Amino acid sequence: MPRKVCVVVTARPSYARIKSALKAIAEHPELDLKLVVAASALLSRYGDTLKIIEQDGFDIAARVYMVLEGENLVTSAKSTGIGLVDLASAFDRIEPDIVVTVADRYETLATAIAASYMNIPLAHVQGGEVTGSIDEKVRHAVTKLSNMHFVSTPKAAERVVRMGEDPATVFQTGCPSIDLAASVLGRPGAGFDPVEKYGGVGPDIDISNGYLVALQHPVPTEYEQSRRQVSETLHAVHRLGMPTFWFWPNVDAGSDGTSNAIRAFRETVEAPNIHYFKNMPPEDFLMLVRSSKCILGNSSVAIRECSFLGVPAVNIGSRQHSRERGRNVVDVDHDQQAIVDAVTYHLRNGRPPRDTVYGDGHAGERIANLLAQAPLTIEKRLTY
Amino acid sequence: MPRKVCVVVTARPSYARIKSALKAIAEHPELDLKLVVAASALLSRYGDTLKIIEQDGFDIAARVYMVLEGENLVTSAKSTGIGLVDLASAFDRIEPDIVVTVADRYETLATAIAASYMNIPLAHVQGGEVTGSIDEKVRHAVTKLSNMHFVSTPKAAERVVRMGEDPATVFQTGCPSIDLAASVLGRPGAGFDPVEKYGGVGPDIDISNGYLVALQHPVPTEYEQSRRQVSETLHAVHRLGMPTFWFWPNVDAGSDGTSNAIRAFRETVEAPNIHYFKNMPPEDFLMLVRSSKCILGNSSVAIRECSFLGVPAVNIGSRQHSRERGRNVVDVDHDQQAIVDAVTYHLRNGRPPRDTVYGDGHAGERIANLLAQAPLTIEKRLTY
Amino acid sequence: MPRKVCVVVTARPSYARIKSALKAIAEHPELDLKLVVAASALLSRYGDTLKIIEQDGFDIAARVYMVLEGENLVTSAKSTGIGLVDLASAFDRIEPDIVVTVADRYETLATAIAASYMNIPLAHVQGGEVTGSIDEKVRHAVTKLSNMHFVSTPKAAERVVRMGEDPATVFQTGCPSIDLAASVLGRPGAGFDPVEKYGGVGPDIDISNGYLVALQHPVPTEYEQSRRQVSETLHAVHRLGMPTFWFWPNVDAGSDGTSNAIRAFRETVEAPNIHYFKNMPPEDFLMLVRSSKCILGNSSVAIRECSFLGVPAVNIGSRQHSRERGRNVVDVDHDQQAIVDAVTYHLRNGRPPRDTVYGDGHAGERIANLLAQAPLTIEKRLTY
Amino acid sequence: MPRKVCVVVTARPSYARIKSALKAIAEHPELDLKLVVAASALLSRYGDTLKIIEQDGFDIAARVYMVLEGENLVTSAKSTGIGLVDLASAFDRIEPDIVVTVADRYETLATAIAASYMNIPLAHVQGGEVTGSIDEKVRHAVTKLSNMHFVSTPKAAERVVRMGEDPATVFQTGCPSIDLAASVLGRPGAGFDPVEKYGGVGPDIDISNGYLVALQHPVPTEYEQSRRQVSETLHAVHRLGMPTFWFWPNVDAGSDGTSNAIRAFRETVEAPNIHYFKNMPPEDFLMLVRSSKCILGNSSVAIRECSFLGVPAVNIGSRQHSRERGRNVVDVDHDQQAIVDAVTYHLRNGRPPRDTVYGDGHAGERIANLLAQAPLTIEKRLTY
Repeated sequence: MPRKVCVVVTARPSYARIKSALKAIAEHPELDLKLVVAASALLSRYGDTLKIIEQDGFDIAARVYMVLEGENLVTSAKSTGIGLVDLASAFDRIEPDIVVTVADRYETLATAIAASYMNIPLAHVQGGEVTGSIDEKVRHAVTKLSNMHFVSTPKAAERVVRMGEDPATVFQTGCPSIDLAASVLGRPGAGFDPVEKYGGVGPDIDISNGYLVALQHPVPTEYEQSRRQVSETLHAVHRLGMPTFWFWPNVDAGSDGTSNAIRAFRETVEAPNIHYFKNMPPEDFLMLVRSSKCILGNSSVAIRECSFLGVPAVNIGSRQHSRERGRNVVDVDHDQQAIVDAVTYHLRNGRPPRDTVYGDGHAGERIANLLAQAPLTIEKRLTY
Repeated sequence: MPRKVCVVVTARPSYARIKSALKAIAEHPELDLKLVVAASALLSRYGDTLKIIEQDGFDIAARVYMVLEGENLVTSAKSTGIGLVDLASAFDRIEPDIVVTVADRYETLATAIAASYMNIPLAHVQGGEVTGSIDEKVRHAVTKLSNMHFVSTPKAAERVVRMGEDPATVFQTGCPSIDLAASVLGRPGAGFDPVEKYGGVGPDIDISNGYLVALQHPVPTEYEQSRRQVSETLHAVHRLGMPTFWFWPNVDAGSDGTSNAIRAFRETVEAPNIHYFKNMPPEDFLMLVRSSKCILGNSSVAIRECSFLGVPAVNIGSRQHSRERGRNVVDVDHDQQAIVDAVTYHLRNGRPPRDTVYGDGHAGERIANLLAQAPLTIEKRLTY
Repeated sequence: MPRKVCVVVTARPSYARIKSALKAIAEHPELDLKLVVAASALLSRYGDTLKIIEQDGFDIAARVYMVLEGENLVTSAKSTGIGLVDLASAFDRIEPDIVVTVADRYETLATAIAASYMNIPLAHVQGGEVTGSIDEKVRHAVTKLSNMHFVSTPKAAERVVRMGEDPATVFQTGCPSIDLAASVLGRPGAGFDPVEKYGGVGPDIDISNGYLVALQHPVPTEYEQSRRQVSETLHAVHRLGMPTFWFWPNVDAGSDGTSNAIRAFRETVEAPNIHYFKNMPPEDFLMLVRSSKCILGNSSVAIRECSFLGVPAVNIGSRQHSRERGRNVVDVDHDQQAIVDAVTYHLRNGRPPRDTVYGDGHAGERIANLLAQAPLTIEKRLTY
Repeated sequence: MPRKVCVVVTARPSYARIKSALKAIAEHPELDLKLVVAASALLSRYGDTLKIIEQDGFDIAARVYMVLEGENLVTSAKSTGIGLVDLASAFDRIEPDIVVTVADRYETLATAIAASYMNIPLAHVQGGEVTGSIDEKVRHAVTKLSNMHFVSTPKAAERVVRMGEDPATVFQTGCPSIDLAASVLGRPGAGFDPVEKYGGVGPDIDISNGYLVALQHPVPTEYEQSRRQVSETLHAVHRLGMPTFWFWPNVDAGSDGTSNAIRAFRETVEAPNIHYFKNMPPEDFLMLVRSSKCILGNSSVAIRECSFLGVPAVNIGSRQHSRERGRNVVDVDHDQQAIVDAVTYHLRNGRPPRDTVYGDGHAGERIANLLAQAPLTIEKRLTY
């Protein structure tokens, strides 16, 4: 009988990140994919990830509503609790042989706890990376609850082992998000008009001479500053004057500060060069990024996928602090002038060489094969 | 203004373990103790810990009901979620400067997540120990969420540091449970009659020539076997024929198996030498243990407090696997004959020397002082 | 396509009460039964109703754990909330055409709210009855949320209509619990030995000259008094000296008081005439009751099934206050002497005539037919 | 000792409705107000009711986050469950002598259940009214859980009594929302510029020759149609061309349909006569309404406060179906032309006479006095 693999997807970016693995699991003869869609992935105001998933042809085994409104620190904690309660019911019904959890969002811990407490082997994708902030606490806590580790980079593998995990359970598969980047790498861009396809709001912008992509998430431990921080970036983009596609942040404690700042900016500043998108499917997003002159903000896409794609990136603030990076990244503070300078530097210097530190484009298959073959155990102990 | 220190106590043994620190915090001029009582510590069938706490003179800042009935793996997971939801409300109202979580029970993770997500510095007591089983997953996950580590033994300190925690945040305070053991060490035992004071059920037993203490918890990852395992111990005690005080287990996934086995044993076997207690305050429990000829079962008390007290211990099964131990412990399987042999061995050889591997009796003061003086931060990153 | 009928069973007595309807629904060609088992029906310490349901051949569509430990008023309220959260997920997945809720236990309201808010037509079994206590609040609140009313007695029908419900939605089907009573009515009792079949605890009792059945539930609004009340009944039974089968109460706020009182009684009084059962399947329970000399306590079985069976009943205290009754019932206070007198009266006077006020034994079929044919609507308004 | 009265406010309109009673309770020497703010009243995107409450000088006894994102029927049900879980903790801590719940929103039932199950007397404001839709189910279910009824109109009083409530517990106090209307009635409007004070979005509009106020909520049982329905009203207002203040709806299952429709309208239609507000404090809202030429939509304000104020109203669709009304109301379907005609009719005919069917402006004091003097009981039974 095929192993039942239950993957929990809680957000738009996690879906993009895991999609190639989902496909490989669904197609693997010895695996039976059970996909649970949860948290902001169910909510239309974070980009209707559910609809995208269904359009991609995946069956949904359970929907887990868990985002408690408030967008503050209390409700983040409570949301995780609500998710844990519901995920336990879902696992009780689905009876998976393995649960897979992705990355480091706060809801991830709900998946990890439900699986651990219910004696279901837990596989973690993207452990061992360092970034600072609450995300990192969550990521390493999930590592300590996991039985299998599918890591992206050599350093991530090394860190997971140093944290006391059995090396036999640590697999450097590369990141499945790079698989997606690999799939768009050679695709012809001609005929792809993002505004025509996705609408968005704001002025029409002429991108025939190149454009920027901006994407800035709130940083939970700097809650109060979210508003000011995103404002620096918005004004920098305004000053650069270059056509820019700005993407709305996904949900998080603090996103309210960021969202409010964006709304406030839109209502006070006439920025003829900024067009806003809420969301688009990951492939089209990567297509857009691939052909951009530069990406800026604090998204991990700038570090990970863009190193593989060879897209120049300006990384702002502490959110991606200490993530491994290729040569495509320039780091700056939340400072309008510094952002302008860094983008200008990139525009002058053009595209950097491609780099496979985060994967070679075959992570999904590797993960599926390991899920089919690796011994299943819930026992573990520190190696020291 | 004194720092508000919120300690969450979720079970009878955790209370015993942290009590000396609670006292030191309550008495510290720069600290304001906020005690949250949660989970089985609120339930009369696990020994009315709440009442004991109130009798000890502590004020209760919040009561958090979270034990969902079912005593299976699903309800353990859901209980943690329910606790997380309620603890977040409690912290939102109490606004602590520090949250303290104790040990490794599954509910501990609810406390750790609520504090972490709400940007409250988290202190963990008893990190870095290794025992196998789900407890260990939880303990190390809590370590990864914590900002301060109050550890018991040199090896525990070393492990926490190796897991990537900043050595400046790791304090080898010793275990506060040893403080309690220290306080009963010199107390006169004369006049203490446990049956007169606590009743219990079962036959009157004559303890004038010595007695045993037995205490066996279910082991979550061996859920199905709980019933058989405790049965081996019960029959061993029956065969030994020596007067024995048997303590009821505290709540856990699987405790139903254990409790049922005890009930079944009582109804089928006439064991004139076993008297049952549900619970007693930690001091009196330690008094009872201190004067016993031998403790048997799988409680950590046998390893920790009894190494300090110099009480012979027979440790049964995997629950305390790989915990550091003094010379008072003999380890055996869940095997009736082996248990009988090990107890007999101890009875022949008498008391081993006392050992301070788990502390010197001053952990509580050290913890209170550190809570008052240590820098408060929620930021952390791996040291490698 | 057959209508999906989702019935939520939350307790042992509710299952007994609805069983004949479940059977009729399962066998009806135009209905598709989806059985949700929830609350104490999932818990072994309330009689393993889940196992009984499975043995009866029903498939379980969902298990909803919702009983929060504490057995006090706070946890009753919280349990209902937890159940509501989980039932909403279950209904979201099952997508029933109709939800059926039974009687008046506090969890019933969770079912009713989930269905109402999710725009699923709600059918209520046993509305319109009056009993006093919180149960009554719940029962009439459920009536106001329901779209179809399957009531037991003419007066119940009248009351539901007077509360403003459309008479076209009120059906006097009789109570399905009477169907079960009808099925055991003519069954030969020879060869049925309850102690041999179910064990129980306490002394062997000789029932060849007749026996009593006792069953007393805690009354939530008289929480503090539960302990004293059940004690009166226990001592009365002790004094009567007649062989008695005593049944353990089901879960409720306050059951702790009752359970503790029973335990205390057992440990202090040597009552050679009382044998205790935790539970038995409804048919066997009714067989036992049918052949008893008298039933006493505050169970509704004494009023409902026993009026149909013609079994003398002593109804103690306020729990069944103002329920319609046949001529088999004598009412008394929580008073030892009064209980003794009433039982003695019955023993002298023998069996009363049978009465069909609560149904004629065909409620289940009627309910199934109505569920298959009645128009489905979620709209309703007061008729005045 | 003064009675502790715990009032739970869950939404902007409920606050407006109960405010005069809150004031009277806070000022009453024999009452101690404990105000719990919950649900959308805590959320900035529904108008920062919390901030308004604090500015009005009330202390907050507890904040209860309970709105689960999704804005569909499942999440409405789950939100109520989450609220119930948290409210029970809040009541456990606050220990109120009476709980007061307002009106008929879905969350109201959470308050009512928590209080009922915890044996706290429950007072309900605005019972007995009929409106159709799920609201009505909830309102009458709350009536069945309540011990005291503070109703607005003579017919409401009659209905509550006919539903079987003891007439001695039914008090026709009038609606406290009318108290607020009474307080703005004579206030000078000069100098009040809503756009200057509250901003809002959309074009500047010249209101010197009069203006309209529009406010349309989604109707849960007509979920799919919300989008189309509000669109009819928007286009009607656009055609009327008269300066209009449009108010954003409060949260509800379906509000997403309504909100989306408004957003879509704004992005496709250039409506130079519509200015949008998210919210304003109730007094200023009533000031604005008082001086308007006509109010349109489906808000109860049009029926209740506006009958007292004598403001012409066009009531659209089924939401206020069968509410008692004064002579100020014209009812129409969700039909653009009918809406235009009805507004035009009112503009031609001017202001209708004032009417006190919903109260005389002294409800708050009456409620406070009754809360201080009425006997407190949790017992109740049907009167028939």
